[in-house]
Amino acid sequence: MNLRDYIRDIPDFPEKGIIFRDITPLLKNPEAFKFAIDELSKKLDNLDFDLIIAPEARGFIFSGALSYKLNKGFIPVRKPGKLPYKVISESYSLEYGTAELQMHIDAIEKGQKVIIFDDVLATGGTAKAMKKLIEKAGGEVVAMVFLIELTYLNPRKFLEGENIISLIEL
Amino acid sequence: MNLRDYIRDIPDFPEKGIIFRDITPLLKNPEAFKFAIDELSKKLDNLDFDLIIAPEARGFIFSGALSYKLNKGFIPVRKPGKLPYKVISESYSLEYGTAELQMHIDAIEKGQKVIIFDDVLATGGTAKAMKKLIEKAGGEVVAMVFLIELTYLNPRKFLEGENIISLIEL
Repeated sequence: MNLRDYIRDIPDFPEKGIIFRDITPLLKNPEAFKFAIDELSKKLDNLDFDLIIAPEARGFIFSGALSYKLNKGFIPVRKPGKLPYKVISESYSLEYGTAELQMHIDAIEKGQKVIIFDDVLATGGTAKAMKKLIEKAGGEVVAMVFLIELTYLNPRKFLEGENIISLIEL
Repeated sequence: MNLRDYIRDIPDFPEKGIIFRDITPLLKNPEAFKFAIDELSKKLDNLDFDLIIAPEARGFIFSGALSYKLNKGFIPVRKPGKLPYKVISESYSLEYGTAELQMHIDAIEKGQKVIIFDDVLATGGTAKAMKKLIEKAGGEVVAMVFLIELTYLNPRKFLEGENIISLIEL
């Protein structure tokens, strides 16, 4: 099965010049979604970790399924004001301005091993901010895992030294 | 396993007088999360359906796992401006003002049978708006499924006639 057939390119979204990779055709097709989760799971088979952590919102769909299949705990990372308990925050730069991510202060116990998941690896800014959150909490990042890697944005240079795993390279 | 032990009550969030039901302790615990997904799956065993549809963001975590386990397609419903392709919209009333939900115009094929999932059933407004979206697209709602039902808000009266399934009643 070629998962690329289930990713729809949307030009000029969310702004002019960007090609958005729409994964809703993949999600809608039970065989494609199952195949994606099973293939991602295989790539994580040899890793020792306790938790999967993902940013809202699309990242939750795959990481919920992965956490279930691999029998791991799941930690949501959210935009400011969404998590109800005490949080730690991390700000990071976007092309224009900054963004902020939050995680519950008791999400990770000291020494726990964590996998970061997101559906798309673009510049790597979100993944790096999540790593900082995890380390602030005393956790250790074992790998950064993505459904799609936009290789033409050169994220591996920005994330040098990380264990990066992706299923589809574009 | 008593799942209630993994739900943390946060008073006065997001506003004074509301008790927020925080499911992050449940997500963090692999056994509790697995138990919740397996118990929800059992309740859907006898139903004939094609797709699971859920609103962002917490709803995605459980419904991603459920779609994988039950081998169904998954359809995300999002806040305005988040979906990249052509959408249909539905507005609905909140306590103060209105909210709007969007779904891709090609998300559902005519006659497809759909299950609505959300983590918490409160007043039922979101579920009813999702049902309208599904019916606009030619789909049929088979059941509305929730991890937690806030019975004291009387949502079954508002959703009279629907097949409502919930795992934890508060």
